[in-house]
Amino acid sequence: MNKPFTAAQAQVDAAAVAPLPHSRKIHLQGTRPDLRVPMREITQADTPTAFGGEKNPPIFVYDCSGPYTDPDARIDVRSGLPALRAAWIAERGDSEVLAGLSSRYGQARAADPGLDGLRFNLRRTPRRARAGANVTQMHYARRGIITPEMEFIAIRENLNRSAYLASLAASGPKGAQLAERMGRRHPGQSLGATIPDEISPEFVRAEVAAGRAIIPANINHPESEPMIIGRNFLTKINANIGNSAVSSSIQEEVDKLTWAIRWGGDTVMDLSTGRNIHETREWILRNSPVPIGTVPIYQALEKVDGRAEDLTWEIFRDTLIEQAEQGVDYFTIHAGVLLKHVPLTANRMTGIVSRGGSILAKWCLAHHQENFLYTHFEEICAIMKAYDVAFSLGDGLRPGSIWDANDEAQLGELATLGELTAVAWRHDVQVMIEGPGHVPMQLIRENMDLELDWCKEAPFYTLGPLTTDIAPGYDHITSAIGAAQIGWYGCAMLCYVTPKEHLGLPDKDDVKTGIISYKIAAHAADLAKGHPASQIRDNAMSKARFEFRWEDQFNLGLDPDTARSYHDETLPAEGAKLAHFCSMCGPHFCSMKITQDVRDYAASQGLAENEVLAKGMEAKAVEFVKSGAEVYRKQ
Amino acid sequence: MNKPFTAAQAQVDAAAVAPLPHSRKIHLQGTRPDLRVPMREITQADTPTAFGGEKNPPIFVYDCSGPYTDPDARIDVRSGLPALRAAWIAERGDSEVLAGLSSRYGQARAADPGLDGLRFNLRRTPRRARAGANVTQMHYARRGIITPEMEFIAIRENLNRSAYLASLAASGPKGAQLAERMGRRHPGQSLGATIPDEISPEFVRAEVAAGRAIIPANINHPESEPMIIGRNFLTKINANIGNSAVSSSIQEEVDKLTWAIRWGGDTVMDLSTGRNIHETREWILRNSPVPIGTVPIYQALEKVDGRAEDLTWEIFRDTLIEQAEQGVDYFTIHAGVLLKHVPLTANRMTGIVSRGGSILAKWCLAHHQENFLYTHFEEICAIMKAYDVAFSLGDGLRPGSIWDANDEAQLGELATLGELTAVAWRHDVQVMIEGPGHVPMQLIRENMDLELDWCKEAPFYTLGPLTTDIAPGYDHITSAIGAAQIGWYGCAMLCYVTPKEHLGLPDKDDVKTGIISYKIAAHAADLAKGHPASQIRDNAMSKARFEFRWEDQFNLGLDPDTARSYHDETLPAEGAKLAHFCSMCGPHFCSMKITQDVRDYAASQGLAENEVLAKGMEAKAVEFVKSGAEVYRKQ
Repeated sequence: MNKPFTAAQAQVDAAAVAPLPHSRKIHLQGTRPDLRVPMREITQADTPTAFGGEKNPPIFVYDCSGPYTDPDARIDVRSGLPALRAAWIAERGDSEVLAGLSSRYGQARAADPGLDGLRFNLRRTPRRARAGANVTQMHYARRGIITPEMEFIAIRENLNRSAYLASLAASGPKGAQLAERMGRRHPGQSLGATIPDEISPEFVRAEVAAGRAIIPANINHPESEPMIIGRNFLTKINANIGNSAVSSSIQEEVDKLTWAIRWGGDTVMDLSTGRNIHETREWILRNSPVPIGTVPIYQALEKVDGRAEDLTWEIFRDTLIEQAEQGVDYFTIHAGVLLKHVPLTANRMTGIVSRGGSILAKWCLAHHQENFLYTHFEEICAIMKAYDVAFSLGDGLRPGSIWDANDEAQLGELATLGELTAVAWRHDVQVMIEGPGHVPMQLIRENMDLELDWCKEAPFYTLGPLTTDIAPGYDHITSAIGAAQIGWYGCAMLCYVTPKEHLGLPDKDDVKTGIISYKIAAHAADLAKGHPASQIRDNAMSKARFEFRWEDQFNLGLDPDTARSYHDETLPAEGAKLAHFCSMCGPHFCSMKITQDVRDYAASQGLAENEVLAKGMEAKAVEFVKSGAEVYRKQ
Repeated sequence: MNKPFTAAQAQVDAAAVAPLPHSRKIHLQGTRPDLRVPMREITQADTPTAFGGEKNPPIFVYDCSGPYTDPDARIDVRSGLPALRAAWIAERGDSEVLAGLSSRYGQARAADPGLDGLRFNLRRTPRRARAGANVTQMHYARRGIITPEMEFIAIRENLNRSAYLASLAASGPKGAQLAERMGRRHPGQSLGATIPDEISPEFVRAEVAAGRAIIPANINHPESEPMIIGRNFLTKINANIGNSAVSSSIQEEVDKLTWAIRWGGDTVMDLSTGRNIHETREWILRNSPVPIGTVPIYQALEKVDGRAEDLTWEIFRDTLIEQAEQGVDYFTIHAGVLLKHVPLTANRMTGIVSRGGSILAKWCLAHHQENFLYTHFEEICAIMKAYDVAFSLGDGLRPGSIWDANDEAQLGELATLGELTAVAWRHDVQVMIEGPGHVPMQLIRENMDLELDWCKEAPFYTLGPLTTDIAPGYDHITSAIGAAQIGWYGCAMLCYVTPKEHLGLPDKDDVKTGIISYKIAAHAADLAKGHPASQIRDNAMSKARFEFRWEDQFNLGLDPDTARSYHDETLPAEGAKLAHFCSMCGPHFCSMKITQDVRDYAASQGLAENEVLAKGMEAKAVEFVKSGAEVYRKQ
């Protein structure tokens, strides 16, 4: 199925570079000229005169799409993105540019003329920590250093909230009232999260130092825009891409990357298992403004022709270095799959469903030895801190079915991951913990609580979880239900699941559906935790909805294109987008219109303002209001 | 947009009548010959020899599709379904067949020759309770009578679980073990629900008597297959259909009905607001095996040309009788929208979004009088009990945005619905309570808890709730997240939301997507509550998944067609469905294959059985297992 790919013909996916409708890429300036934090500004129409005629200033949303949606950027996927962080990394003076690649495999690939047609045209030699140095963001944080990455993140996480509220306050005579109204949010139920109203660079530093958050930022991936994963920040989502032996080419994977970040993928994992993994990864990294994660054991297994028992620490180590020097930002390492856990899976309904987990289980049994990732864990830490690769400690024994949820194998491994977290932290290596999988709703909270306890609040990163097994084709939904809940409970990053889960490899449509489903779950979690800026977008959407600003409803949503096309299926005329009714009820039957009539009716009695209106109607029915207030106080 | 419709040309949607793949309609016999409870049996292939070769007996799933998917049934939508309950209703002797329609509007429509082309060809005259009689299921329940409807429901709710487990036990030498395994379930977190292992007819009666469950079963809808809505039963879902002034015809609505029940709609609400509401409803009722709900105020408003202030109790009363005599099983009645609540909505972000709510708010203000549904509530009860129409007490002030969630207006109305519940119960009229709407996750539980408290455990019936406003085009997902949670917390029926919510009228694809999304939410809720039979389907699916029985995976799922087509996009060959790998990982990289290798490896050491295998591996690594068990006990 692989389409022929040649580097010379590679091009950016046209669908990925157009700005979103009524959106504009802006940059917020930090304390240094080269610290410019991207954000998406969505402009809105004025409120129709009939509804008050006020200005609706633009809102700002988190933007993962990098330069792709910036009309000022020149995009050439053959040359990659600008190296945004290169100066920051260099000026720290704790790393050095190597003469060439350190991994034997990387050297061999570079020397193979048969691969010339696939090669990415940037030939930057890698950086590595100087001897004895540690280049992790955690190391800086623990020494009290606020890096440019941390400041970038602080600005990014605030979503330009203060500026938005200020623009409302300045928008007219009712500005202050409007700012109060549009910025209002429900108190969250944070369940232990503590998100400040304004994220400061120092707060970012402190969270990273404590291990409660990570900044995946390999010094060899300077193209990446800094982002953070932690429960006291916006909930993040990951999108998986990657080819397999039966499907997909490099161009397709690059297209999936740019498509995934357009819709909001905060990180992307390249799970390729087929041919040309090394070259595919190079193309992805050089074109990615988001952190890239991998599962190095997949490639190591390719190197031994798929025979798990032939894996060695040396091959694995070379693979880690190969990928670290390409710039991978986090590695899934299944070091918690211990020999003692394997028999605990024998009675499972679906055994070991993690590819990494099953490879290592097989290796352990074949050799009657402990998992070599566990026995070599400190050596892995040494590699991680030389490039600042973060651990994503893999859940190789995650449940693959409701039946297997929260069983001894799973929880035994989780406890081991807690031990390994402590080891990594001794090296100031950043850690997040991977979690399930398939879990019925009543068992989700236990997963989160045990993770926080055993892994000392290291960020949790879960796949879903799927809350039922009975809906193949809809596992983006079975899992968005679980993801929203675990996000609320404290999970820092949600790994998406696409409609093709359990059935096939996702295409671009599936990637988008998976991303949007998970942006919903993450946002619902942010609202539930009471994130200070997250309800602004809901409020803006609801105001647009009440005022029949159809274009704004489309544009404020996660997927303007789909919203518009659904609307147009029933009422395609352009005029209908200005109409004060919609297709659901028709012109004579619109509840929002009737609500406005209710307000107008009251206004016709001389009550113009909302507040006055409430009071005026109160005056008309004063005894009702009083008893109404009583009713409310009853609860 | 209306397509011309003539009764003579009406026909059943071909897509709705085919049995689902590898499925067979069966009937379980009750204590009387005419009590035959439908269920869908899904057959499965044997386990491949490599995995043990055992028999996998069929599983049984709840089936809402009525005779449509029964190859033995002759379907003619012009004549409607058989009157399954006619004898049960007649033999109770407490109702009488009327000479003709009682409502003036019904009489006028019947006499209008201009409507002949739209008319349904069954001309059964309606039944009504004899003078002084009360024909509600609640009335019977409270007098200690177990009706055939109650027995039917008890059989239906058990999902043939005992027979399934017995068939496993009888399937071979390892049968008992297999039955234990396949019937195993996680303990639920019931949050106050108390679902017995086996539902008895007496349990059904007691729940209905207590008001904790309702059986919507109008005596003029004898075609309906009895079902129950209550937190101690399977969580139900409702699908909305209905034309509006700008879209849809009678044939389309009948098609949506048969399509909705095919995929699992437990009840259907006909929310038509356009022309020919009366005739559309007749077609829907006569062809519906599921209870039908309506919002009578919609039609009443049509009768006064859309002018809310012209509504009168007399017009509304005539509409109730008109619809009750057609057979509508539950009415949404917005009797809780009181004059005192209206000013509480003036400061909302999205005002009053319920159509019924806004109509009544407008009426209240226009007349400076209390809502006539509230002042005439006892008269409405008198009509309800004469036909056994259940109340669905409408949440006319439900929030239309996250901003408005759980506000004074909403909760004030909920308290009033609690008062009205007590009134209805004095008449032995069945009641469920409608709920929101748009609610962020952290506020969902409060909705459920207040409802249980204030409405004395009357079944809750919520729309979603949507957990964020920012995803138009995906509100089936924003709301499935909330629906699953509130279902777990105790909500008895979940009203679906389609992808077109807020944007347009759903077409058939949207109806299906909405239904499947809500079947997922309802099932996830059943698992979380610990429903005794619900995990059986998950277990069967997971076993099929582990054993690479692809066909069974498709067929056991909620939507076999979509699962199959997704699978075939990547691996279309028929042979691939027998392959012991899938497209995600390819043949050399399959984690399930490796898991099997792990088992085989152990088996090659002389350990054949699972139990022995576990013990055998334990023996090999006994110190690990012991410390592993310790790890587990730590939590």
